[in-house]
Amino acid sequence: MSPEEFREHGKRVIDWIADYLAGIESHPVRSQLKPGQVRAALPPSPPERGEPFDNVLADLDRVLLPGVTHWQHPNFFAYFPANASGPAILGDLLSAGLGVQGMLWATSPACTELETVVVDWLAELLGLPEQWRTDARGGGVIEDSASSGSLAALLAALHRAGRGDRNTVYVSSQTHSSLEKAAKIAGISAEGVRAVDVDPATLAMRPEHLEALLAQDSADGATPSMVCATIGTTSTTAIDPVRRIGEICREFGVWLHVDAAYAGVAAVCDELRWINDGVAEYADSYVTDPHKWLLTNFDCTVLWVADRAPLIEALSVVPEYLRNAASETGEVIDYRDWQIPLGRRFRALKLWAVLRWYGAAGLREHIRDGVALAAEFAAMVRADEEFTLLPHHPFGLVCFRPLWRGLSDDVADEATGAMLQRLNDSGDLYLSHTRVGGRMLLRMAIGAPLTGRDHVHAAWRRILAEHRELRAELTAASRMCR
Amino acid sequence: MSPEEFREHGKRVIDWIADYLAGIESHPVRSQLKPGQVRAALPPSPPERGEPFDNVLADLDRVLLPGVTHWQHPNFFAYFPANASGPAILGDLLSAGLGVQGMLWATSPACTELETVVVDWLAELLGLPEQWRTDARGGGVIEDSASSGSLAALLAALHRAGRGDRNTVYVSSQTHSSLEKAAKIAGISAEGVRAVDVDPATLAMRPEHLEALLAQDSADGATPSMVCATIGTTSTTAIDPVRRIGEICREFGVWLHVDAAYAGVAAVCDELRWINDGVAEYADSYVTDPHKWLLTNFDCTVLWVADRAPLIEALSVVPEYLRNAASETGEVIDYRDWQIPLGRRFRALKLWAVLRWYGAAGLREHIRDGVALAAEFAAMVRADEEFTLLPHHPFGLVCFRPLWRGLSDDVADEATGAMLQRLNDSGDLYLSHTRVGGRMLLRMAIGAPLTGRDHVHAAWRRILAEHRELRAELTAASRMCR
Repeated sequence: MSPEEFREHGKRVIDWIADYLAGIESHPVRSQLKPGQVRAALPPSPPERGEPFDNVLADLDRVLLPGVTHWQHPNFFAYFPANASGPAILGDLLSAGLGVQGMLWATSPACTELETVVVDWLAELLGLPEQWRTDARGGGVIEDSASSGSLAALLAALHRAGRGDRNTVYVSSQTHSSLEKAAKIAGISAEGVRAVDVDPATLAMRPEHLEALLAQDSADGATPSMVCATIGTTSTTAIDPVRRIGEICREFGVWLHVDAAYAGVAAVCDELRWINDGVAEYADSYVTDPHKWLLTNFDCTVLWVADRAPLIEALSVVPEYLRNAASETGEVIDYRDWQIPLGRRFRALKLWAVLRWYGAAGLREHIRDGVALAAEFAAMVRADEEFTLLPHHPFGLVCFRPLWRGLSDDVADEATGAMLQRLNDSGDLYLSHTRVGGRMLLRMAIGAPLTGRDHVHAAWRRILAEHRELRAELTAASRMCR
Repeated sequence: MSPEEFREHGKRVIDWIADYLAGIESHPVRSQLKPGQVRAALPPSPPERGEPFDNVLADLDRVLLPGVTHWQHPNFFAYFPANASGPAILGDLLSAGLGVQGMLWATSPACTELETVVVDWLAELLGLPEQWRTDARGGGVIEDSASSGSLAALLAALHRAGRGDRNTVYVSSQTHSSLEKAAKIAGISAEGVRAVDVDPATLAMRPEHLEALLAQDSADGATPSMVCATIGTTSTTAIDPVRRIGEICREFGVWLHVDAAYAGVAAVCDELRWINDGVAEYADSYVTDPHKWLLTNFDCTVLWVADRAPLIEALSVVPEYLRNAASETGEVIDYRDWQIPLGRRFRALKLWAVLRWYGAAGLREHIRDGVALAAEFAAMVRADEEFTLLPHHPFGLVCFRPLWRGLSDDVADEATGAMLQRLNDSGDLYLSHTRVGGRMLLRMAIGAPLTGRDHVHAAWRRILAEHRELRAELTAASRMCR
């Protein structure tokens, strides 16, 4: 495709996206298709001759869009938000247009140096310690996901602890599944992943149980290697007591990793900085995801380490064909040694475009909007005597369920599940679920850039209507059974 | 940024990229900046208030471009090509615009199903076995890089072999460093990574040595877990004897992984299908990178497995909040379980756009152009009595060096290094290097979409001129020393 053809088709794609975003509410939030329908609508073999680019756009509309679940839809409340934004999309586009490979400083210096600048900027915006800046002892790096960032942190922790046949890692039942997966990848046995109890009310890790496990494992000859504390768990946004956990980690000489994938970016707001209490003093590594709630398209996780040496030692392998003068001076950062893969895209461009377009003030406003809307939604749930609410954390997630008075717990959970399925099947909105203490809860995650107050109120009305209808059906059915 | 603002700025970005590509030859190929110059030119802190998007583009021109090494420049001959193309950039742009998260089939069915379609299409184009199709027992998946794809394959292999404290993996001195890194990540000790000898002439793995190592390790109670054979090594594009290696793997019940990261895509051409001899019968997993030589922007590695069960078993962890009806039926693919991270972008769009825009015929033409230009360059080197050429494989890489008659090997290698540095410092072209049998060689990798015959001939003239000049300087210096 020549530059002039690119110019022409590119502008059509920009129009397509602008139209898509402007009209996104015309689509059902969750795809209504059944497994196999998209595949069946596409040819079994690739074309022998090239086709016009317009064919791609036509099939995008005809075949793919019905199979898309619209994560940018203002009524998307499932999982966590996957914020996209104009400047992020365009930063990513510039990255694709330049087509550089940033594995080493030498392979495109700007790719590395802009990354050091934006991760330092973000550390400042979040009030993270000076020591984590790339011009100090620590440093930040953009990874594709918190899963990969946490795996990199685990490998650094294992390197520092020394790999043996009894390395242990400490998580809670509320820790993200990626930590269990990271341990599995790193070759830690299932028994080596130790589950610390949580407080049943707050769902936060119990430090006294952590301490007991560490004492017991150390006495038994294991090598405690990493503790993962979470700020804002995936299930309910619970917050582990990082300071107390950190004190215990220090006592036992264990690496403290903090998973703040979703909630960490909330610290752009001064009034939410308290969530990081203890982090500056005790964390060895920390991940947060601008690609969830900070207006930056996936993939953009930032991993910081307090000391970059063990990370680099754990991940560096240098073959001859990658040796170069700049690397050998030690004056430059080669981000290849901070991540699992070798190759890397110029992801800093999108975070840079976001930080400049919105500014610190714009990012704070975005977070505050989400927090306020979630608080408003939580208040509506709290005020309704047919519903119950999990203790609400000051982020964008609300966990709640209908009480279904008169039904047994199991039947009530089934009713909640049925209600969720009907709501999601309708295409009007999309929620997800979790379980706490065995009970099913709905998760309403607010924070998509297009979600406004009206959407949140409409969602609540829609939920109430579905609840009323199902309640009536259940009452009718139970009368018939009598 | 509103859809209308996006439309406006987006078209400016498209123009910026079209102009950049049209004028790319006005830039020095390799950045001329020193470490720290880009960083020093950017503010130490992020802006408090948002800025116009034009500021981003202005700083891109002023600050970043001088720090960019232009991988898409037609005179970029270093490492391997990192092919970008218009349809790939636009496919990636559509992915960013949709902003969907494809971790599960349920989170956006089209993201998963288009991926199954394009990896099956690519398998067909490359003549890979039917069994590897996603509607058979195997399946393909897009990973970010061959490093990550090979790590996933290793984890599947370890799962099948059973993890113990003496798992062993077999590579050669020519195997890509990512395999050593994967083993390190997976917790295999340095002694567990066994180096199989290569034939000094062809640099291909010696099957008889592999067989001897496997016999010895098995007898010693180790658990041989994976052999990695390479089709087109990174250093010199050497080809391991996959069929013979496969027979040995079968005999010992060991997983055969084939790393065809660079060269595998060449099999779109019938006349190059022989490179995959033995793959269909023996390979358990196979990676190749459309993002190197097949016109698809990084990141786009395809990993295929002959049997997907061990891969999924090795990588699947299912927390409650990701449970869903579609996954539980087993009717759908959840690509989360085929990769290291949880989250994933809609990368299939770019490969789909490439396959449709170019068609099979266009892809073959692109590969054939690269092969022919490399053969032409190799012939010029071969014909020059001042140079020597490594036995040339029919891909896009030529490895060669000046003979520097009369100089000792060490001094000759220093002279080759000095010549390389001068060429790269000039900004006229960019080559990289490797070492074979201790001797330094220049690597001229041809295959960027913009590289034409004129560029290759000009590069050879430029190399000859630099060689003549350095030769003269060395002669003058040696006269002075006499």
